[in-house]
Amino acid sequence: NTPFDSSTHPHRRVNPLTNEHVLVSPHRTKRPWQGQTEPPQAVNLPRHDPQCYLCPGNERAGGLRNDAYESTYNFVNDYAAVLPPPGPIAPPSPHPLLTTEPVQGGCDVIVFHPRHDLTLARLSLEEIGKVIEQWCAIYQTRGSQEGIEYVQIFENKGAMMGCSNPHPHGQAWSLSVVPTLPATELANLTKYSLSDPAPSAAPKGPKNRPCLLCEYAHFEIDVPHDTGRVVFKNEHWVALVPWWAIWPFEILLLPYKRHVPSISHLTANEKNSFAQILSNVTKRYDNLFSCSFAYSMGIHQRPVPRPESAALISDEEDEENVAHLHLHFAPPLLRSASVRKFLVGFELMGEPQRDLTPEQAAQRLRDCSEVHYLDGAA
Amino acid sequence: NTPFDSSTHPHRRVNPLTNEHVLVSPHRTKRPWQGQTEPPQAVNLPRHDPQCYLCPGNERAGGLRNDAYESTYNFVNDYAAVLPPPGPIAPPSPHPLLTTEPVQGGCDVIVFHPRHDLTLARLSLEEIGKVIEQWCAIYQTRGSQEGIEYVQIFENKGAMMGCSNPHPHGQAWSLSVVPTLPATELANLTKYSLSDPAPSAAPKGPKNRPCLLCEYAHFEIDVPHDTGRVVFKNEHWVALVPWWAIWPFEILLLPYKRHVPSISHLTANEKNSFAQILSNVTKRYDNLFSCSFAYSMGIHQRPVPRPESAALISDEEDEENVAHLHLHFAPPLLRSASVRKFLVGFELMGEPQRDLTPEQAAQRLRDCSEVHYLDGAA
Ligand SMILES: O=P(O)(O)O[C@H]1O[C@H](CO)[C@@H](O)[C@H](O)[C@H]1O
Ligand SMILES: O=P(O)(O)O[C@H]1O[C@H](CO)[C@@H](O)[C@H](O)[C@H]1O
Repeated sequence: NTPFDSSTHPHRRVNPLTNEHVLVSPHRTKRPWQGQTEPPQAVNLPRHDPQCYLCPGNERAGGLRNDAYESTYNFVNDYAAVLPPPGPIAPPSPHPLLTTEPVQGGCDVIVFHPRHDLTLARLSLEEIGKVIEQWCAIYQTRGSQEGIEYVQIFENKGAMMGCSNPHPHGQAWSLSVVPTLPATELANLTKYSLSDPAPSAAPKGPKNRPCLLCEYAHFEIDVPHDTGRVVFKNEHWVALVPWWAIWPFEILLLPYKRHVPSISHLTANEKNSFAQILSNVTKRYDNLFSCSFAYSMGIHQRPVPRPESAALISDEEDEENVAHLHLHFAPPLLRSASVRKFLVGFELMGEPQRDLTPEQAAQRLRDCSEVHYLDGAA
Repeated sequence: NTPFDSSTHPHRRVNPLTNEHVLVSPHRTKRPWQGQTEPPQAVNLPRHDPQCYLCPGNERAGGLRNDAYESTYNFVNDYAAVLPPPGPIAPPSPHPLLTTEPVQGGCDVIVFHPRHDLTLARLSLEEIGKVIEQWCAIYQTRGSQEGIEYVQIFENKGAMMGCSNPHPHGQAWSLSVVPTLPATELANLTKYSLSDPAPSAAPKGPKNRPCLLCEYAHFEIDVPHDTGRVVFKNEHWVALVPWWAIWPFEILLLPYKRHVPSISHLTANEKNSFAQILSNVTKRYDNLFSCSFAYSMGIHQRPVPRPESAALISDEEDEENVAHLHLHFAPPLLRSASVRKFLVGFELMGEPQRDLTPEQAAQRLRDCSEVHYLDGAA
């Protein structure tokens, strides 16, 4: 009987944040690819594009004109997926299986930089710091609005991820409901906090209860194990390919030194090392296949900031703080700048399937240079 | 206070098969699209392509040669995602959050027709009937194998859905585990069967208990309501855009006259009308944007056929028969043959979002001709 080898034998792993499985088929990368390839990316983008609705001073679709901004820039999405509260009340359901829930909220666009031709990977730490400040500001402002229960900050990067404009930008959708995925993660974080795992030296959540993500990060970076899934780590943050990664080079980025419910909880030092690890990770991504690496990124955290009224409870006693801040990076590329993984057929109808192990992916990302390939020549 | 109007006001709906939400933003189709468009499809494909590894008589990647087949044709995938049982036993978990489960099984390719240039939409009813027979045969054979707990039959169609070969074909992945999505659906079907919904005239599941999908189909086709979500219906089957559809023109196809746990349970008449509705739906799809419409399709049913040993229990008493046969079609196109919906950023990090209502989508599909656009000139 051959002993089990995770880099050879098909197996499945569980994501404890969602209780969903991923099928790992490591031998499958040997498969030749004869399918669709991605079109080559535009190179030599101009610093300012007169046609771009995100560049400073340009006119947008709705007819409004952008400021001549010099750093980050926010505005309300001209084609928002949700509209401001109050909205109409819920109609009666025609059948118990058919329920409708009106949703209100707001959709913001967050431009990262005035230059059309840059991306997070090519911004200075100071410039990335300003993006982080914008995320904090939007989370705080939108999340304190009447009727808003959740703020989802995300970035779609690259045409193959449905991003319609290369100008560096992200979005924040603020909603009157907590969406499915973060709601599931929060339920599982809460469940874990009430469980009784083996004692460990990991940081603890509110009421000194265990935190799933603090435990997980602690296990991954505990040096004696050396799990091989850590891509990069600095004073406060770790970037790793999680045990349960779906996308080929998926990354989970989180603070590991203490339990941090949201970006509002970050200290100045933690924000500095957040900028540093964002720069490091996005540079490695670009260097992996020498291209501007496409991904969707999302920030998961406490649904909205602590209200003023909670000031009497300490942060450590506030059960709502069960969330632990983390970022998911979901990048589609698998083999090269033009060959992506398609999560289709079996993945849509059965469960996600991946073609290399998370450990193999982490190794590839660890091997990437920390100097951006376009700056390497200097 | 404006009354709620589902074709104008953003809202979310619940999928009772998964308990997940979809955010519906009907006003969003007005948004201009400046992002990636899909490359035009190859037209005038040859009837036989010497380079195609699926055409009769050709050599495949593994070096094996296809028979000179004249109808459907099956073989084991040369790059299977899972390998035959028995496999190595599960290793001890390094941490309770990191579990590994070895998976065994087999991956079959099912070629629908010898001609390279056809698709389901252009096959005769008799030819589609042969594909159905193949699905039944694979479900029966694979599903009776020692160690196989689930058979997932699916089709990836079109380059934008990761299909690497236009030759008409599907796959069946047979596994030693029930994958996440069908396991969730089965759990919700079971839960519903134990619930006590309002009495209705819908067919009943085993032990005369309610079946979620029988109830749902019954509600949708009950003429007095006319929900507007039915695309096409024949003697035994209905194709509809479900209340909770995620993909722009998603279709749920299921038998509505009686509770049918699997394709093994279909009568000859039911198979004939299955072929007819498959032909009707795939023709409408192609006609929607006058192109070979891309999709992923999957058959959900009883995980494996009833074993011989169950012969003593009647079909109506067999609790495993709680599953109700249905097909999901997940097609990405949104506005035209080249503009698709990207389920990215918010969708990956929050919850799926759609830009037109299921009712609007069903109307568009109802309006499509039943004669294939390439045959219309005749
Ligand atoms: O097996 P194929 O058609 O080559 O591959 C396609 O379908 C598989 C099953 O859905 C996916 O895992 C692959 O990512 C996709 O490219
Ligand atoms: O808002 P954008 O960038 O134009 O649009 C993109 O991101 C949205 C949010 O993830 C998606 O709903 C769209 O399908 C996608 O094309």
